[in-house]
Amino acid sequence: MTHPSAEIGMPLAEVDTPALLLDLDAFGRNLKRMADQAAKAGVRLRPHAKSHKCPVIARKQIEHGAVGVCVQKVSEAEAMVMGGVRDVLIANEIVGAPKLQRLAVLAREAHVMVCADDAGNVADLSEAATAFGVTLEVLVEVNVGADRCGVEPGEPALALAQLVAGSPGLRFSGLQAYHGAAQHLRGFDERRAAIAQAVEKARTTRDLLEKNGVACPLVTGAGTGTYQFEAASTVYHELQVGSYVFMDADYARNLGADGRPVREFEHSLFVYATVMSRPARDRAVCDAGLKASSVDSGMPQVYDLPDVAYVGASDEHGKLKLAGKHNTLAVGDKLLLIPGHCDPTVNLYDWYVGIRDNRVEALWPISARGPGI
Amino acid sequence: MTHPSAEIGMPLAEVDTPALLLDLDAFGRNLKRMADQAAKAGVRLRPHAKSHKCPVIARKQIEHGAVGVCVQKVSEAEAMVMGGVRDVLIANEIVGAPKLQRLAVLAREAHVMVCADDAGNVADLSEAATAFGVTLEVLVEVNVGADRCGVEPGEPALALAQLVAGSPGLRFSGLQAYHGAAQHLRGFDERRAAIAQAVEKARTTRDLLEKNGVACPLVTGAGTGTYQFEAASTVYHELQVGSYVFMDADYARNLGADGRPVREFEHSLFVYATVMSRPARDRAVCDAGLKASSVDSGMPQVYDLPDVAYVGASDEHGKLKLAGKHNTLAVGDKLLLIPGHCDPTVNLYDWYVGIRDNRVEALWPISARGPGI
Repeated sequence: MTHPSAEIGMPLAEVDTPALLLDLDAFGRNLKRMADQAAKAGVRLRPHAKSHKCPVIARKQIEHGAVGVCVQKVSEAEAMVMGGVRDVLIANEIVGAPKLQRLAVLAREAHVMVCADDAGNVADLSEAATAFGVTLEVLVEVNVGADRCGVEPGEPALALAQLVAGSPGLRFSGLQAYHGAAQHLRGFDERRAAIAQAVEKARTTRDLLEKNGVACPLVTGAGTGTYQFEAASTVYHELQVGSYVFMDADYARNLGADGRPVREFEHSLFVYATVMSRPARDRAVCDAGLKASSVDSGMPQVYDLPDVAYVGASDEHGKLKLAGKHNTLAVGDKLLLIPGHCDPTVNLYDWYVGIRDNRVEALWPISARGPGI
Repeated sequence: MTHPSAEIGMPLAEVDTPALLLDLDAFGRNLKRMADQAAKAGVRLRPHAKSHKCPVIARKQIEHGAVGVCVQKVSEAEAMVMGGVRDVLIANEIVGAPKLQRLAVLAREAHVMVCADDAGNVADLSEAATAFGVTLEVLVEVNVGADRCGVEPGEPALALAQLVAGSPGLRFSGLQAYHGAAQHLRGFDERRAAIAQAVEKARTTRDLLEKNGVACPLVTGAGTGTYQFEAASTVYHELQVGSYVFMDADYARNLGADGRPVREFEHSLFVYATVMSRPARDRAVCDAGLKASSVDSGMPQVYDLPDVAYVGASDEHGKLKLAGKHNTLAVGDKLLLIPGHCDPTVNLYDWYVGIRDNRVEALWPISARGPGI
């Protein structure tokens, strides 16, 4: 883990770059707004910690009423439990003896749930649970439209749920029904239609299970792009929203019911960068490239300088195209960039530099960073 | 820094995933081949450590005859010097007092060179050098075609070189003349033509400097995609090749003089992944997504399984499309992926897991990992 590039109390302008900044005021408003929305809809909040990878943030979400968090990896679950989180859903399949053993051991320390979509994997989960004398709570992941992991809705889900329910050391706890592909459909109606289908698949599967005597106490899913539809569905009990705490440039391209970009949550996460070269009238280069901001969902956007565009990323450089009056940008000037995609960008850093009133107020370790063993 | 997911002596099949594997035999052959090519051409090798971020690998390159390494960041230079490397070129501009102070202090420990393309930055370099009582060797970066950093060839480069030469605490040491944009031009003739232009710009600039009494002992540049042209130019003294040690999927798309993909260096770097879901006849999902392999230059490629294609990356998942006889791929099976782009993929990991004869032989820390303060 690298040292943070800032000290508590330091003026923002002195923070060395590249750094991952968190605007603590905007972040706090995002926390509160989502908590309010969930409370209003009468659903539980289980934010996805894969976005922030930071137990400090997880604990703040829980202080705002979340029941716990979800994660994607055993290593993330370990980081959360070691950081004081008592309720963690691994919203993903966990495969292989080393990880299953760690999962079983972790279930001694906290309430841990995991997903499954394969009979052989259920047998392995059962073996690990019995070997370590724990009960693992298992959700069956259902493919509600993303065509990634998950068994098909209906009979295949029922069969796997029955297998889980009959396996020593396991308890069937419900359905994981997340539609990832729907999150970034740009149009409001597209997202609504995709989630209507997902809800229908989750509902019919739940009903089939209960008709067959398999209690299904939990249906969980949803993301920042669609959460209001799952919240209103009466089928989903929990929301697994992650990106809402930060908002990235990609999510900001989603359109609302009025056809305009959704501005429900604020950009609170920024890559702080320095202009390191100013070689031509219309060109500057900053020190934040591919190793400082993930470009899988598009380039980062320059914040609050409308005449400066981030047009190309190489490993350690960001190329800026300049127009109009902001041609005064000079070597040494610092910029705020809105990451294209927050999750993999956070994963490049070891620290959040929390900023309030233009000063460093907090340094939070990104202790679940990494590819996720 | 996370713990390695492997132990020395462990069979490859037991290494947990995602892991960054280094095939030590292929890596060794790449090391030797590039050393031989440089020796044959009579140019020095100064490999780019931004690709591997690992002092162990840097020292092996030096054992094979390299004069030192280059890097892009002060933090990388520090990691190299602390790891035993005695000669480091920061092939990049360094901006801001904190980094310049660290650079000056580092120059007490090892031979360190740095680039400049701005008069104000030269003044700052001079101030830091005199404040710390060191002499900093400075190369003027010339824009030889990449249109990123660098002053224009000819008179602007001469003016900056003269400024460096006349600045207290600085020594003008030559020209940084790297054409990054040429490295991935696919056609052999395209790359040759781009480097012919770069060589001409470097040559005329060097000649102008010397005509004006400014000695120019060093012209340095080149990358894995074009090195043979710079090596044959009689203008370049050093080659800054980086990716040759690993080879990634993107470089493997470059074509040679015969119109066929260049196969001069071998793929030695792999992301090791596990199939974690097998939900449909033609679909599998592995545990290596955006946080395990950078997709900025295209998806990773599945190694040695021609009927399996990596078709989509989400944060923690890689979607595999299956065809033909390899439909037997099962949950728990492990795969080798060739990263699309090696540098930012390496940057996601803390350890190389070195493999020989299907066993773990080495664990090398990626100690310069990070966005690079």
